[in-house]
Amino acid sequence: MLTNKKKIHIEWGDCDPAGIVYYPRYFAYFDNCTSALFEAAGLPKHQMLKTYGLVGIPMVDTRARFILPSRFGDDVLVDSSIVKWNRSSFEIQHKLFRGEALAVECWETRVWSVRSADDPEKIEGKAVPDEVIAKFGGR
Amino acid sequence: MLTNKKKIHIEWGDCDPAGIVYYPRYFAYFDNCTSALFEAAGLPKHQMLKTYGLVGIPMVDTRARFILPSRFGDDVLVDSSIVKWNRSSFEIQHKLFRGEALAVECWETRVWSVRSADDPEKIEGKAVPDEVIAKFGGR
Amino acid sequence: MLTNKKKIHIEWGDCDPAGIVYYPRYFAYFDNCTSALFEAAGLPKHQMLKTYGLVGIPMVDTRARFILPSRFGDDVLVDSSIVKWNRSSFEIQHKLFRGEALAVECWETRVWSVRSADDPEKIEGKAVPDEVIAKFGGR
Amino acid sequence: MLTNKKKIHIEWGDCDPAGIVYYPRYFAYFDNCTSALFEAAGLPKHQMLKTYGLVGIPMVDTRARFILPSRFGDDVLVDSSIVKWNRSSFEIQHKLFRGEALAVECWETRVWSVRSADDPEKIEGKAVPDEVIAKFGGR
Repeated sequence: MLTNKKKIHIEWGDCDPAGIVYYPRYFAYFDNCTSALFEAAGLPKHQMLKTYGLVGIPMVDTRARFILPSRFGDDVLVDSSIVKWNRSSFEIQHKLFRGEALAVECWETRVWSVRSADDPEKIEGKAVPDEVIAKFGGR
Repeated sequence: MLTNKKKIHIEWGDCDPAGIVYYPRYFAYFDNCTSALFEAAGLPKHQMLKTYGLVGIPMVDTRARFILPSRFGDDVLVDSSIVKWNRSSFEIQHKLFRGEALAVECWETRVWSVRSADDPEKIEGKAVPDEVIAKFGGR
Repeated sequence: MLTNKKKIHIEWGDCDPAGIVYYPRYFAYFDNCTSALFEAAGLPKHQMLKTYGLVGIPMVDTRARFILPSRFGDDVLVDSSIVKWNRSSFEIQHKLFRGEALAVECWETRVWSVRSADDPEKIEGKAVPDEVIAKFGGR
Repeated sequence: MLTNKKKIHIEWGDCDPAGIVYYPRYFAYFDNCTSALFEAAGLPKHQMLKTYGLVGIPMVDTRARFILPSRFGDDVLVDSSIVKWNRSSFEIQHKLFRGEALAVECWETRVWSVRSADDPEKIEGKAVPDEVIAKFGGR
């Protein structure tokens, strides 16, 4: 199982009047971590979308648990990995560390998505190619 | 139980290259819906923070399920209510509708939080005042 | 000259650790105000893009002057109008008021843009249709 | 004159339905570049605020010229420097390059700001200390 580590520097504009990260920003961090994970597997998102004719890998379910707050100026480290492959969806887990301490945990379920052939306004799931799964070490 | 309804107009800048709402933006919408819910209960956030000496009502756990995508130009409606009061935390549920259809569901657990008397860098939970709970119709 | 007025409620997540609006958020407000201005002229952005085959109305130059800060919980009012039509570009002015006081002023130059026929990766300007200019009261 | 170079990876969530960077995000990039510039001068923002009792270095005037669009997956490089010191304000210039090409230019005027002694709700300018200016190579 491939795990990617991404360092994130908490910026002033990521923080709210309480001086801590505004929590929706964590989801943007994690979305960037998922892109970085695919890039680490040899699949930079902008190329992957073209190669496989994807409209994206939209989120269908995500949950985060916020254990410790972070502040601007902090450097945090996120471990990301795909923990389960389903037919057309897959599950990712992110762990954000501040030093040794686990500060935020996040789970994502995303869908390998294409525009519907019948209706280009519609987005629909498609089986994840085996060669993609293989790049992460297989199921 | 008090339920607040908030209309949200999906903006161009809320959407990603797939043309649908970038999912971290939903969490910002829901955070705004929580503020609007407190305001509907007679507790505008900026006044509530002063009245009760709060640093905020930070998120400790949130989950969202994305059922249908929304696009810029869409008007959506969010129903928000506090579904459970614990001692120093409380649980909120948001349902985002596109027309009649449930498009996104979100659950939040937040903490009634003050700066620690011992260490102003630390944020800690405090019992939610009964008068606050009463404004939402009680436990 | 058509002027649109848009009310904006300053949200918690729009503010930074200084407790005032994080200035990049003002540009998102103004972008939304430009969309609202077109909608007031009978040209909702999502329909206008389809009708005229536009990829968007991207910014080429913008400037803002920040006179007074705003805080979360504030309601501000933005006056927006198109002050000049050039061939394929146009200039917009926004004035954001906090009560009677002018708090922020912004100038925008945007381009009426289509995908290049030669190279769909390229975006290029095109003459603004007279019927569009007419909806704003003409040149 | 100290010039800092910061590499920025354009993320999916920074881009709009036209597939290019949503322009308010550039201002967030530039704000981060200003923080990085101070850090390069030995003044990490979170420490600088404490050391000098600042509430921040808020923007009073900023302008950007967008010459070439950038897309998600692009790596861009920003050169940042303080081009002028006034009494309590200073001017910064950012140049964002995509490869060899200048893609965005930005000018900022910011104020060295403290909370007013008379009214902590008010923010006011204060003379920039000479030792700060010295760290950037002097006036």
